[in-house]
Amino acid sequence: MKRKTAPLATLLMAVAAMLGISPAMAQTDPLPSWNDGPAKKAIIDFVQATTDKSNPKFVPPEARIATFDQDGTTWVEQPMYTQVMYCLERVAVLAREKPELKEVEPFKTVLSGNREAMAKLSMKDLEKILAATLTGMTVEEFNAEVKKWLETAKDPRWKRPYTELVYQPMLEVMKFFRANGYKTYFVTGGGQDFVRVYSEQVYGIPPEQVVGTAGGTKYGYDKSGKPILTKEPKLLLNDDKAGKPEGIHLMIGRRPYAAFGNSIGDKQMLEYTQAGGGARLMMLVHHDDGKREYAYGPKSKVGTFTDALMAQAKKNGWVVISMKNDWKKIFAWE
Amino acid sequence: MKRKTAPLATLLMAVAAMLGISPAMAQTDPLPSWNDGPAKKAIIDFVQATTDKSNPKFVPPEARIATFDQDGTTWVEQPMYTQVMYCLERVAVLAREKPELKEVEPFKTVLSGNREAMAKLSMKDLEKILAATLTGMTVEEFNAEVKKWLETAKDPRWKRPYTELVYQPMLEVMKFFRANGYKTYFVTGGGQDFVRVYSEQVYGIPPEQVVGTAGGTKYGYDKSGKPILTKEPKLLLNDDKAGKPEGIHLMIGRRPYAAFGNSIGDKQMLEYTQAGGGARLMMLVHHDDGKREYAYGPKSKVGTFTDALMAQAKKNGWVVISMKNDWKKIFAWE
Repeated sequence: MKRKTAPLATLLMAVAAMLGISPAMAQTDPLPSWNDGPAKKAIIDFVQATTDKSNPKFVPPEARIATFDQDGTTWVEQPMYTQVMYCLERVAVLAREKPELKEVEPFKTVLSGNREAMAKLSMKDLEKILAATLTGMTVEEFNAEVKKWLETAKDPRWKRPYTELVYQPMLEVMKFFRANGYKTYFVTGGGQDFVRVYSEQVYGIPPEQVVGTAGGTKYGYDKSGKPILTKEPKLLLNDDKAGKPEGIHLMIGRRPYAAFGNSIGDKQMLEYTQAGGGARLMMLVHHDDGKREYAYGPKSKVGTFTDALMAQAKKNGWVVISMKNDWKKIFAWE
Repeated sequence: MKRKTAPLATLLMAVAAMLGISPAMAQTDPLPSWNDGPAKKAIIDFVQATTDKSNPKFVPPEARIATFDQDGTTWVEQPMYTQVMYCLERVAVLAREKPELKEVEPFKTVLSGNREAMAKLSMKDLEKILAATLTGMTVEEFNAEVKKWLETAKDPRWKRPYTELVYQPMLEVMKFFRANGYKTYFVTGGGQDFVRVYSEQVYGIPPEQVVGTAGGTKYGYDKSGKPILTKEPKLLLNDDKAGKPEGIHLMIGRRPYAAFGNSIGDKQMLEYTQAGGGARLMMLVHHDDGKREYAYGPKSKVGTFTDALMAQAKKNGWVVISMKNDWKKIFAWE
């Protein structure tokens, strides 16, 4: 039990000062997986400026919020969002319990295993699948299911668990921000409860700092009278496009100072961040590396990066990260 | 800029160890406004047990979450919730802009100034007032309005700003928890955006740790093209009763280890906390001090503490705090 921290902290800081130790003296590169260039420089300059009390761009510690999109920004989103892969595999489980689904769309298409037909499913179809596969589970059952799935499921290209497909350069950015007093948040179109299952272990982002597409839950009691929360087919927050700043306001209540995205789904989050004025950092990951990862055209089904978005980035001073040129390595295991 | 914190922290801890300094050695009473008794003992025992690595009840730092109801638990809620007072005063402002409201209920009753008639307004009436007084404002306009109001508005009994009517013993509990690595959250039936305006300054709880009744916002652009968020008359979360555990799951995504409330509105939050098993602390403030504050009967309009709730507290081992017996002082300025 720590009853009085201030005097101890003060003493230790005084000792540090006497020994001539200053945090700024450590000169190790905080972003070793980045090539030198405008993107790396923008990140380092921003953190330096906003944490230096003598700089007019200084941001007080309690206001240091940095938000990160997930799919395509901090891990691979091709050929399909990981959560969609999860849901599709859940349909097979569901069909064993309710065989009548085998004849009903969109379940029929999913169960056919025809990837081309599956890729054509509409957002409404996907919502039906989400509702059917998630509703009625307790929050704990859902967590356990996702955890179990993540332990065995593998990405089709690299044959590795999805949680190993995180971008090492972005992990370094998150750590660098946190080491400088920033709270790092996910602001993802993915399911909030899904991402929370692994966000702490994989990214160092605790569940309470995950803002995502969120459904309702319902409080009740199980047969033994124990309180439970079950998942409901009610959408509370569609955390994409305009839903991103709305979700940030709902869940954080502060405007970010830095925001990272990779598609038109992140445009509004970057606009909202920039509109706060003063020192703000807006960055977009551009998938231009078909060899080491993927090169998306401007009409890609996921992570759409239109020509209009590129034009807006240039006009507004948003920094575009070229995976090909800015990243020395993409994955930790490379 | 702090590029490498671990080695510095390690060194400082080593210096502290050499000097024989240990946080546990500071023996100052963390709860000076509390009389010795079962309530004070329960708090200190809980914090000691859950922060002691050798104790089977140890809770790892990242899981240390403590939730607090606000109205009636950490500040005065009589004769009416502070936020209701605010809304009623906003009606007068609104009526000057839209004189037609003067003839329409529930606005007519509010403008009459008849406190008895106002006390009879239904929840639906209050919702109409909330929608009329809040909708269409930008988030920043709302914050500025509330801030301005709080600077001048005074409680009718003590003639002091509402923000001075906080319970000193509960401020000490919050600080004690935080000093021991707990994240303190509000989980309030009050408006999330309203409470966020002052929670950091008054209670040390940052906006991102306020869970409250939340309405929607709408992302858009003002006439100059600047991105704005405006308040919408859409209820996303009714953070009362069953809505409290639902809100905790939505906004925090972890179950609390300690929960503080004062009424039937907090029952489900305490049940949900306890259902996590292991070391959990559930406490209820009982308003039994008509002299220094208020003594509510079991049928009070606000902060209802029924006989059934008292029976459940006894049965479940929830600790009831007697304002009269457990608190040496109620307000900091006493």
